[in-house]
Amino acid sequence: MMDFQSLAAIPALADSLPEADAEARAAAARRQDSLTKPPGSLGRLEELALFMAAWRADPRPRIGRAQAVVFAGNHGICAQGVNPYPQAVTAQMVANFEAGGASINQLCRVNGAALSVVALELDRPTADFTEGPAMTEAETLEAMARGAAAVDPGADVLVLGEMGIGNSTIAAALAAALFGGAVPDWVGPGTGSDAEGLARKVSAIERGLARHRGLRPMQVLAALGGREQAAICGAVLAARSHRIPVILDGFICTAAAAPLYAADPRLLDHCLVGHVSAEPGHRRLLEALKKQPVLAFDMRLGEGSGAALALGILRAALECHNGMATFGEAGVSEA
Amino acid sequence: MMDFQSLAAIPALADSLPEADAEARAAAARRQDSLTKPPGSLGRLEELALFMAAWRADPRPRIGRAQAVVFAGNHGICAQGVNPYPQAVTAQMVANFEAGGASINQLCRVNGAALSVVALELDRPTADFTEGPAMTEAETLEAMARGAAAVDPGADVLVLGEMGIGNSTIAAALAAALFGGAVPDWVGPGTGSDAEGLARKVSAIERGLARHRGLRPMQVLAALGGREQAAICGAVLAARSHRIPVILDGFICTAAAAPLYAADPRLLDHCLVGHVSAEPGHRRLLEALKKQPVLAFDMRLGEGSGAALALGILRAALECHNGMATFGEAGVSEA
Repeated sequence: MMDFQSLAAIPALADSLPEADAEARAAAARRQDSLTKPPGSLGRLEELALFMAAWRADPRPRIGRAQAVVFAGNHGICAQGVNPYPQAVTAQMVANFEAGGASINQLCRVNGAALSVVALELDRPTADFTEGPAMTEAETLEAMARGAAAVDPGADVLVLGEMGIGNSTIAAALAAALFGGAVPDWVGPGTGSDAEGLARKVSAIERGLARHRGLRPMQVLAALGGREQAAICGAVLAARSHRIPVILDGFICTAAAAPLYAADPRLLDHCLVGHVSAEPGHRRLLEALKKQPVLAFDMRLGEGSGAALALGILRAALECHNGMATFGEAGVSEA
Repeated sequence: MMDFQSLAAIPALADSLPEADAEARAAAARRQDSLTKPPGSLGRLEELALFMAAWRADPRPRIGRAQAVVFAGNHGICAQGVNPYPQAVTAQMVANFEAGGASINQLCRVNGAALSVVALELDRPTADFTEGPAMTEAETLEAMARGAAAVDPGADVLVLGEMGIGNSTIAAALAAALFGGAVPDWVGPGTGSDAEGLARKVSAIERGLARHRGLRPMQVLAALGGREQAAICGAVLAARSHRIPVILDGFICTAAAAPLYAADPRLLDHCLVGHVSAEPGHRRLLEALKKQPVLAFDMRLGEGSGAALALGILRAALECHNGMATFGEAGVSEA
């Protein structure tokens, strides 16, 4: 299990964690070119197969075990009226995940992922970042360790998601702090804010940014983030240590992992982004992270729903990669 | 089983075939708004659920049986050097489908579709359309009947695909004849034509269009199409008669169904398009048909591969629609 000693030590992990295996990737590419189809004609499905080969260090990678983890947290910033739902909904939705009634439950079932739900001290929201840092360094490291501990080392792929009333405000704050730009460009309706709610979100974030200036990326996570964001960072790093590729979800999940990218871009090399959300900041954030989403379905639910949907595509990509006949095997003439 | 008497009688079918069920759709929409998520937050997954409800006339539609059919044909136009692969590859790929080695086999398996392969007189290619009509009316109607007969009336959804060396030329010819515009705008590399191959495709199509002018849409199908194109039209109509929604595949499959749209746009109301192909004419064709593709993966393989991939998304949409708890059931507070 990964042990996080200090936030300052995180960027250097990029030098010690496993890298993509170029040899396995090249062998997978040779296999793709031998399969009964015009070269390249499976488009992004071929890229996904090569990505899996590189990270699993296996020319014919398979998804035996797929894990999905949803991290849930509560946020002091809700005191600023940034969300139309009561904060109690976070725990209610955790109960819904546990009872099997949420979208993520259906999507994990249909795409064959085992779902874990990790509720992070819901009764103890983080501090309101307009008044001080959302978390201490110790709280941040503890949440990261919880995230790392949730990762099944035997998984072949990890789907990550989140739940937390108010956390689209957290996401916009992290993105604005890490990548700059005007706050309104990062803020969207989230679960359904109206114009006044949006204005409250923008104002809260602007006050938070003014209060927490000049921080390094992992300190930004502590100052403006939340427990589920820190847990996602921990899970991303733990997955990397086991060569487990990660599928990030939408705006909030991607923003949660963004401090790692800002600390060292290599730290997200093993991460796909499952979809581009309807939340307007997500497209901008994907550009900042140089990530192309797998899907685009105008979803904006969170919970890992877009990532779990993309898992089905990843499975399809590997079924083609592993199951198709070569030209030689099938006796099909080449061009 | 549908009996096609004449090509001239096809457009009027739009008046007698089943329509979308507005009541089932409205009931499905009410259910979506009661589920534990912000309204609309599943984006296009919600639209897909409503589409299925409307066509299955069932507020909670399920996919018990999914059928995929690949129609294969050969084309006289290959005499004009429009394709780098030998025409024998059509039969070789049919054998590959039957042996389970093609992409479509893997995608049907992973997404739970039963695959049928219908080879249409591969030893008797259609006529070269630069010299005369590709098919007689009788040949066209016979292929349409073969297509209709292939449809399982008990299926809940139908995935359509095609295989036929040279048929990206057929697709471009149909699209240009039905929707106008410059031929080069409809022509792409297909399975891998180089610049000279592309020039031969454009020239062949321009000569075909010059020879076959002023035809009604179903006559265009006979003059410039092929047996697998006619079979796709027949399958689309038969599916409609059973209220079975259809997922069309890429450029060639969509162009095959396009004569129906040109005959009466309502005839494709029950059809989704599974993906937008990398073949450049497809995007233009989707605009002409006012269809938004489900997926965009730069695929250009045919065989029904993009449609079979989209079937997984449709399944996910219905799993959410049918399996999620309502706010009331889950005890989750609304905004």
